[in-house]
Amino acid sequence: MTTLIRKIEARDEARWRELWDGYCRFYEHEPAPAVASHTWARLMDAAAPVHGIVAERAGAGVIGIANYLIHENTATLTPVCYLQDLFVDPQLRAEGVGRQLIDWLLAEVKARGWSRLYWNTRENNYRARGLYDQYTPHSGFLRYVIDNTAR
Amino acid sequence: MTTLIRKIEARDEARWRELWDGYCRFYEHEPAPAVASHTWARLMDAAAPVHGIVAERAGAGVIGIANYLIHENTATLTPVCYLQDLFVDPQLRAEGVGRQLIDWLLAEVKARGWSRLYWNTRENNYRARGLYDQYTPHSGFLRYVIDNTAR
Amino acid sequence: MTTLIRKIEARDEARWRELWDGYCRFYEHEPAPAVASHTWARLMDAAAPVHGIVAERAGAGVIGIANYLIHENTATLTPVCYLQDLFVDPQLRAEGVGRQLIDWLLAEVKARGWSRLYWNTRENNYRARGLYDQYTPHSGFLRYVIDNTAR
Amino acid sequence: MTTLIRKIEARDEARWRELWDGYCRFYEHEPAPAVASHTWARLMDAAAPVHGIVAERAGAGVIGIANYLIHENTATLTPVCYLQDLFVDPQLRAEGVGRQLIDWLLAEVKARGWSRLYWNTRENNYRARGLYDQYTPHSGFLRYVIDNTAR
Repeated sequence: MTTLIRKIEARDEARWRELWDGYCRFYEHEPAPAVASHTWARLMDAAAPVHGIVAERAGAGVIGIANYLIHENTATLTPVCYLQDLFVDPQLRAEGVGRQLIDWLLAEVKARGWSRLYWNTRENNYRARGLYDQYTPHSGFLRYVIDNTAR
Repeated sequence: MTTLIRKIEARDEARWRELWDGYCRFYEHEPAPAVASHTWARLMDAAAPVHGIVAERAGAGVIGIANYLIHENTATLTPVCYLQDLFVDPQLRAEGVGRQLIDWLLAEVKARGWSRLYWNTRENNYRARGLYDQYTPHSGFLRYVIDNTAR
Repeated sequence: MTTLIRKIEARDEARWRELWDGYCRFYEHEPAPAVASHTWARLMDAAAPVHGIVAERAGAGVIGIANYLIHENTATLTPVCYLQDLFVDPQLRAEGVGRQLIDWLLAEVKARGWSRLYWNTRENNYRARGLYDQYTPHSGFLRYVIDNTAR
Repeated sequence: MTTLIRKIEARDEARWRELWDGYCRFYEHEPAPAVASHTWARLMDAAAPVHGIVAERAGAGVIGIANYLIHENTATLTPVCYLQDLFVDPQLRAEGVGRQLIDWLLAEVKARGWSRLYWNTRENNYRARGLYDQYTPHSGFLRYVIDNTAR
């Protein structure tokens, strides 16, 4: 049951959309088709700072996805990497796929010389935090967000 | 004692560096001159997505600064705005200057059509949170950061 | 403006009730007269493990109160002290009265050989936490409460 | 695999001590024999407000323990119940034994007319919080503890 991590490709679109929808529902908001299409287009645009990787298992196909983006930062000399989305097929949890995706990205961060890898998670996302705490204690920072798209 | 918010300009460099150093020390890390110079250069580069504003008071000059950056996001159709640094001269706290800086930026976010304004703050930064909570409850998200510059 | 801490006495009842009501409203629940009367009776009962102290200022009278109770604990050889209520006249905040009450109680805990002094505070009670953090970091423990009196 | 909850009895001592030691180690402090003996004595003292229950499974014996105590409270007309210790044999987790212990105690709280059932848990005790959150959201209160036994 070897699982490989690789960069996302055009042929992954249908499965990426399935997992993306599952991810949105996990965070309890309905997936917006316009956002999925926009983000997919950014992932496919080689010039955009939005990137994706997938976890692929022999026989099962793509079972996990991660989307990340690179942006500047006032505290560092090089950009930082934001792992914005991480999602593994719920049927295949607890098999280390999430860890493989993070490990791949952490190696990429080092290879590229980006100054930080960061992500956010809901305080009560206990399953995920059990994994994240193995990388680092949470930073002790809270996020405040004002949504300018709400109506 | 009118205080005005305006975009940062080249003539603000010396004062910006003073306040930046104070800000770094508030967060208990020594200011790194190379980072200050790099960030100042990005603020001054009209093509960079790193921006700054200052609070200026008649007679007192610049008494507060805010640095923010614009980056893409996989959850929205337009970029988001990250208010990364907000600092007011400690002698002039509790006079509403921080609020003025945030209010200016919130208006900018709306005018530009950015999808979100967000910032992070240390869980025990009580003084700041007393202000932030007046805008929105914190998001319930924690930030995990792996530093790739540490040695 | 000397402020003294002393044990509560029967003559403090009217002022204690005023401050108690203010304390209840601070925590956003209407003061229940039956509870106030019950707790007052326990404070006055020399055999009860419920105790009170007051902060008294020359000219101003009682300006702060603290109620505490002693109970057993499975982790220690002697009982522990729970500082359940601490309230200072809002007009006289930031003058160190809360600290004086805690300091008095901490000395009492040591003199009596109680194993711990503890208290709880709302996560966003920033003013209080600014004081508490000077005694000790919070324990990292959250409290879960199931109320059996709600209807 | 029926598991029954019952009050602790003298014959449970050896097994209670084993589970107690495991519980102490889970919270990363070495079990203190003097405390274990003291707490056991209090559990066995019918006059003490310290009580224990056990989860017993046919064939496996006692697989879980809970210690609780009753104490006064300034906010309620009747005492409250503090579930101080809850521990299930790590080999038998995720089978609902913790829930059974809490459910038994919640029924006892109602039957006795105690005003509250409460407990504390470490913020990052994710496994436990996954269960606790099914009873109630955490209270939003943090605990501050000053240890008077530390040397």
